[in-house]
Amino acid sequence: MTVALLNPLVTRLSPPPIPAVQAWGKSYDGSLGPLIDLSQAVPGYPPHPDMLRWLGEAASSLTYTNYGAIEGEAALREAYAAHVSELYGAEIAGGNIHITSGCNQAFICAVMAVAAAGDTVLMSNPFYFNHETTLSMLGIKTGFIVCDSANGFVPTVNAVERALTPGVRAIALVTPNNPTGAVYPPAQLKAIFDVCRKIGLWLILDETYRDFLPNDFGAPHGLLREEGWQENLIQLYSFSKSFCIPGHRLGALTASENVVEEIAKIMDNLQICAPRAAQGAVARALPALVQWRAGNRLEIEARARALSEVMTDLDGWKLEAMGAYFAFIRHPFEDRSSTEVAEHLAKKAGILSIPGEYFGAKHSQFLRFAFANADAETIRQLRGRMVDISL
Amino acid sequence: MTVALLNPLVTRLSPPPIPAVQAWGKSYDGSLGPLIDLSQAVPGYPPHPDMLRWLGEAASSLTYTNYGAIEGEAALREAYAAHVSELYGAEIAGGNIHITSGCNQAFICAVMAVAAAGDTVLMSNPFYFNHETTLSMLGIKTGFIVCDSANGFVPTVNAVERALTPGVRAIALVTPNNPTGAVYPPAQLKAIFDVCRKIGLWLILDETYRDFLPNDFGAPHGLLREEGWQENLIQLYSFSKSFCIPGHRLGALTASENVVEEIAKIMDNLQICAPRAAQGAVARALPALVQWRAGNRLEIEARARALSEVMTDLDGWKLEAMGAYFAFIRHPFEDRSSTEVAEHLAKKAGILSIPGEYFGAKHSQFLRFAFANADAETIRQLRGRMVDISL
Ligand SMILES: Cc1ncc(COP(=O)(O)O)c(C=O)c1O
Ligand SMILES: Cc1ncc(COP(=O)(O)O)c(C=O)c1O
Repeated sequence: MTVALLNPLVTRLSPPPIPAVQAWGKSYDGSLGPLIDLSQAVPGYPPHPDMLRWLGEAASSLTYTNYGAIEGEAALREAYAAHVSELYGAEIAGGNIHITSGCNQAFICAVMAVAAAGDTVLMSNPFYFNHETTLSMLGIKTGFIVCDSANGFVPTVNAVERALTPGVRAIALVTPNNPTGAVYPPAQLKAIFDVCRKIGLWLILDETYRDFLPNDFGAPHGLLREEGWQENLIQLYSFSKSFCIPGHRLGALTASENVVEEIAKIMDNLQICAPRAAQGAVARALPALVQWRAGNRLEIEARARALSEVMTDLDGWKLEAMGAYFAFIRHPFEDRSSTEVAEHLAKKAGILSIPGEYFGAKHSQFLRFAFANADAETIRQLRGRMVDISL
Repeated sequence: MTVALLNPLVTRLSPPPIPAVQAWGKSYDGSLGPLIDLSQAVPGYPPHPDMLRWLGEAASSLTYTNYGAIEGEAALREAYAAHVSELYGAEIAGGNIHITSGCNQAFICAVMAVAAAGDTVLMSNPFYFNHETTLSMLGIKTGFIVCDSANGFVPTVNAVERALTPGVRAIALVTPNNPTGAVYPPAQLKAIFDVCRKIGLWLILDETYRDFLPNDFGAPHGLLREEGWQENLIQLYSFSKSFCIPGHRLGALTASENVVEEIAKIMDNLQICAPRAAQGAVARALPALVQWRAGNRLEIEARARALSEVMTDLDGWKLEAMGAYFAFIRHPFEDRSSTEVAEHLAKKAGILSIPGEYFGAKHSQFLRFAFANADAETIRQLRGRMVDISL
């Protein structure tokens, strides 16, 4: 008898971080009021009632029971292309869109389209943990673009150039950023995109949180208006956060028609097509719920203001960066790891946050607060819970 | 300017076969009656009305909007574990189950759990094309177990042993088989499983079509009752075919709790969790629709009989193998490829089938008919359409 082995690229990954953090919350005794969950990014308000109705109508309909087009429902590809075209002032067609089962899946599709085991992909450091684990699990090497708190955690061209090595095939960035909240300025993205164009790299841009930019921000960037953007850009998006439907698993990817065709080959293997009924429902919601989403942006801005105020008079704690959805907060316990602090905060103060270490080993002085999860009133309660915390 | 490259493991894959075949159907002029689609396996009857109702209720409910457990909804894991336990006379717990977004995803999860780029996985030849493309795209080498028509396309231990090479980590088999329909006898599976146990290989067993075995077949095999099965077996299943809901994307995987935990790491990267609402609905349907599924088995048996009869007097055509869902049929045009024949049959006779070549280069004399897609009356029309076909 010989033991059958598991894939070491998988066994050596840490267990998924979110369930571990949520488990801490279960040990909180409730003495300071209900648990405040600022861990996994999920808007703390329900989907629009029409969204639920459309989801129900689609799911109970015979229209969506069969297999669908691998690339996604034509109606959603068209509606989303129109939305992207308007938002960026660009000309994006349905053929440039591939629907996926969420943005994590959009990321793995994009990465597999451009890199194989042994190639290298660069990420920001701090990074979104699933990007890092996805690459590791595929045997793709990771390189890191160091993002300084001094620069508001925005990657500089210098930092990009320092990270370049011969095997690099792509740079994966997240803006507005998870975990720091940093919103990368359009000019900065353009400068990094120019590096990619010059040396033949793909820029994989995860814009899961772009709908939480202030309403007057305008286009998140101008890359989709660059001549020939298709040769170097793959843009990712999630319907989870903006429509409050992560459980329905929908995301999208914008790229050249050629890349979309390559990704269809990958998706066919991964899961044939994204779940269809939710696609039908979101195709209706995209144009219909514009006002509702604009209202949510205002709400999230109010939450950001509430957090800023809380943080101004919490001794030792420092709001190092904040934007769109997340705040990256320096904790006062210099000799304690972020995991110890986050666990303590969860169990004693009923505040769930993600330890900075989960986003890269060097970030142990930080906690990530997904402040957009909680309303302003709840956020104001943080002060009372955090002010006297000792460890 | 340097061109940004794509992953050659992906670009060299052929485009997904099903859309190509469906495109042929569009050129059929309808002169012999409506198109008979025996290509992609989809039962030609609708889901149970309660299934649609439950899907609608779940999708419009707030219960399932948020992210869910990576491994799947507890209710579905429990219900499916109970179902598997009963079907196989085995003791399977919810912790042995991982819910996925369809059985293709269950396959890629299983494969990634046990093999990395450079390792080898064995498949039957002919094979299910998505298994082959999934492995290729991951840079996993494929080895083939030759399955002879003389043996009814059932793999022998000899054929397995001939295919073994040093880098082999797993054997992936499909029973009832796609494309041949072959139902692997329990004793044969046991003999192959013993080889796996002896030399430390995983057996990945895709049982997507097991619900279409005759009602009196009993347990599809006894492997889940073997002491220590968990050390070598990963079993895959699809809710697509049995519940007629492929568009909702649900599958499941049965394995040791340890393997389930490893697969949760993979799923977290692939898509966080399978779509939730459909999980809630299927948890209700699994126990409730037992009678309905038993009725469908009878219906599919009637379809099989109808096809056998059609094939008895079609000169030159030969039913080489048939079972559960598929028939593997030898066509009479010895000097033509299966792709030419299938295209001709689609365009001239309005019959969609899949060319044997898609399941391995050597199978150009065959077509795969997913006979279970069409009712017996429709199947009887095949004779009239095929009898005089010339090429
Ligand atoms: C940066 C980023 N990308 C992708 C995702 C995954 O989103 P989805 O629910 O669409 O898979 C998240 C979710 O937290 C995220 O923060
Ligand atoms: C053998 C086999 N495995 C898996 C699948 C995929 O099924 P699902 O719809 O659950 O992804 C199919 C579908 O045709 C199949 O034939």
